[in-house]
Amino acid sequence: MRKLFFIQIIIFLAGINYAQRAPLLNSPEVHKDKSVTFRFFSKKAESINLEAEFLTSPKSMIKDSTGVWSITVDPIKPDIYPYFFVVDGIQVADPNNTYIFANERFKRSIVEIPGDEPLIHELQDVPHGKVTYCYYKSSTLGRTRRLLVYTPPGFDVFDSNTKYPVLYLIHGGSDTEETWTKVGKANLIADNLIAQKKAKPMIIVMPYGNVFPGQWDSFTKDVVNDVIPFIESNFPVYTDSKNRAVAGFSVGGGQTLNIGFTNLEKFSCICSYAPYTATPEFKKNFTNWLPDAEKINKQLKLFTISVGTEDFLYESVKSNIAMFEEKNINIKPFIVPGGHTWMNCKLFLATSLPQLFTE
Amino acid sequence: MRKLFFIQIIIFLAGINYAQRAPLLNSPEVHKDKSVTFRFFSKKAESINLEAEFLTSPKSMIKDSTGVWSITVDPIKPDIYPYFFVVDGIQVADPNNTYIFANERFKRSIVEIPGDEPLIHELQDVPHGKVTYCYYKSSTLGRTRRLLVYTPPGFDVFDSNTKYPVLYLIHGGSDTEETWTKVGKANLIADNLIAQKKAKPMIIVMPYGNVFPGQWDSFTKDVVNDVIPFIESNFPVYTDSKNRAVAGFSVGGGQTLNIGFTNLEKFSCICSYAPYTATPEFKKNFTNWLPDAEKINKQLKLFTISVGTEDFLYESVKSNIAMFEEKNINIKPFIVPGGHTWMNCKLFLATSLPQLFTE
Repeated sequence: MRKLFFIQIIIFLAGINYAQRAPLLNSPEVHKDKSVTFRFFSKKAESINLEAEFLTSPKSMIKDSTGVWSITVDPIKPDIYPYFFVVDGIQVADPNNTYIFANERFKRSIVEIPGDEPLIHELQDVPHGKVTYCYYKSSTLGRTRRLLVYTPPGFDVFDSNTKYPVLYLIHGGSDTEETWTKVGKANLIADNLIAQKKAKPMIIVMPYGNVFPGQWDSFTKDVVNDVIPFIESNFPVYTDSKNRAVAGFSVGGGQTLNIGFTNLEKFSCICSYAPYTATPEFKKNFTNWLPDAEKINKQLKLFTISVGTEDFLYESVKSNIAMFEEKNINIKPFIVPGGHTWMNCKLFLATSLPQLFTE
Repeated sequence: MRKLFFIQIIIFLAGINYAQRAPLLNSPEVHKDKSVTFRFFSKKAESINLEAEFLTSPKSMIKDSTGVWSITVDPIKPDIYPYFFVVDGIQVADPNNTYIFANERFKRSIVEIPGDEPLIHELQDVPHGKVTYCYYKSSTLGRTRRLLVYTPPGFDVFDSNTKYPVLYLIHGGSDTEETWTKVGKANLIADNLIAQKKAKPMIIVMPYGNVFPGQWDSFTKDVVNDVIPFIESNFPVYTDSKNRAVAGFSVGGGQTLNIGFTNLEKFSCICSYAPYTATPEFKKNFTNWLPDAEKINKQLKLFTISVGTEDFLYESVKSNIAMFEEKNINIKPFIVPGGHTWMNCKLFLATSLPQLFTE
């Protein structure tokens, strides 16, 4: 909808310093029947493919006489999907789409297919929380880092009496501290579940999880020694373990297990989504691990590992689950169809939030 | 620095579902002497150019035997610059660079060249404010919109006694509500000027300025009827005109003049940066305008229009300045070298902030 504005702006600015720009195209155009048209302008390209997480294989786009390449894809199951164009072999984000996947390794665009009834991650007419970008000093890592903090609807800067439980929520391996809001819609999922009274009002902290190679356990230390103290001195939160949870996806799902189980006294809920665990830190913590299962089961009100059956980590995650079960740790596996995707990741979060801080 | 991490991650994930990705490259690589190497991987491309706002014309990149195209550019004056690659005629953001220009029309990357002494927009070891993403209901526009709010260092959620003045700061024509922080570094400029005691602690509100064509004055109404009331009921701010300012760049610079002069009783400072004023709203407001100069000059503690001499709007902005001078409105023109760029835009903001709320 924002794009319509630019037709007028382009007329104004045409011929000046924006003249070399490609023409404005409506892409992606989500039709009422949930089919979608993607468009890309190039007079020179020889072949353009669409690749997307709603497709099982790339689709060729067709050029018209004006140099506009397009394809209309059959109705898509409502969700949010990454996609990109492959222009003569080169991966390109959609230049007409503002919504970019927050990631350090690739540039992909995002298309949102709305549900007939609004999905749990959609912007709905409910009270909205806020997302605050903060800098904190990491003594562990010796630098200033950024993190995002979701505060729920009703969080009032003038109210010093209300306190909130806290979920620490970690992104995947090449994601950034913005991926959980920009792609995972964690803030809107929380808004909607809180409005439905299915989740408690909580603060969600989204740190930046990537650290230097060879320093695998430094993020664990950063969370415990720097992030948690920063949050507890800057936001009105409870500081007991019953009101503290940790969750994460992929590399962040592995970090979640390391952070949670090496600091058990600090957390009552551990939610690991499609964890990547082939790291020195995981190996160090869980090889020859002799846990006190009774103590752990008493401490943890929720311990879940989620994964999709088509996830490339499925077998690995199954062996993680089996390991915890063998040690008699109470675990709630959550196995669904689908791959190592943020579509599943949103489902995992939406499934966990109602189970947090219930006692 | 984040990139080093991925060498290890890539080793882990290689051969699985990320196998089709291009190799990890260090791009842009800013050298100590401030020369910069840009790299792009393509085995198929026939020509790749670098285009950047530190260049006066495109530069050809050279391919090595492994398919890595590169160019090293002579030392660049410290600043933050947009750039992109043109791969066989197709504009592409740098896939190895996380920092993307927040814009609805193009996908460009950003390279930051640090100063020998830190520049006013650089992350320095000073107390940092926060940037909060909020949703508000626009009754004017009939939808939920997003805006960003900078709160200064020392802003304390537990303190209901301290109040702040407010600057409303508007982006350019195809920018988004994120451009003033992501490209303009408004939050870091404010942090640094506040630390140097050159600017007062203030709240900076960055709304989304783009509206539908044919509704030119609806953003003015949105700011006055929706944005300002939302801020004043959600943040601890002063509500008198002495503590309210408006500023903006390009299309937002034109909007600033419209918002400010049609709501003079609400503002004491109006800062217009390289304004684009060829709009129906500006024409309506300022053609045959018969202002009460004495009253205006009494109300406005600061009225500035800034522009670069190489800006494509330079002649237009000069005529804007002349118009205000002819009407005997006190105006502080700020004319510098340079074009219609965010390099200049940061300079304009850093020059204005110390002049706000000084009485």
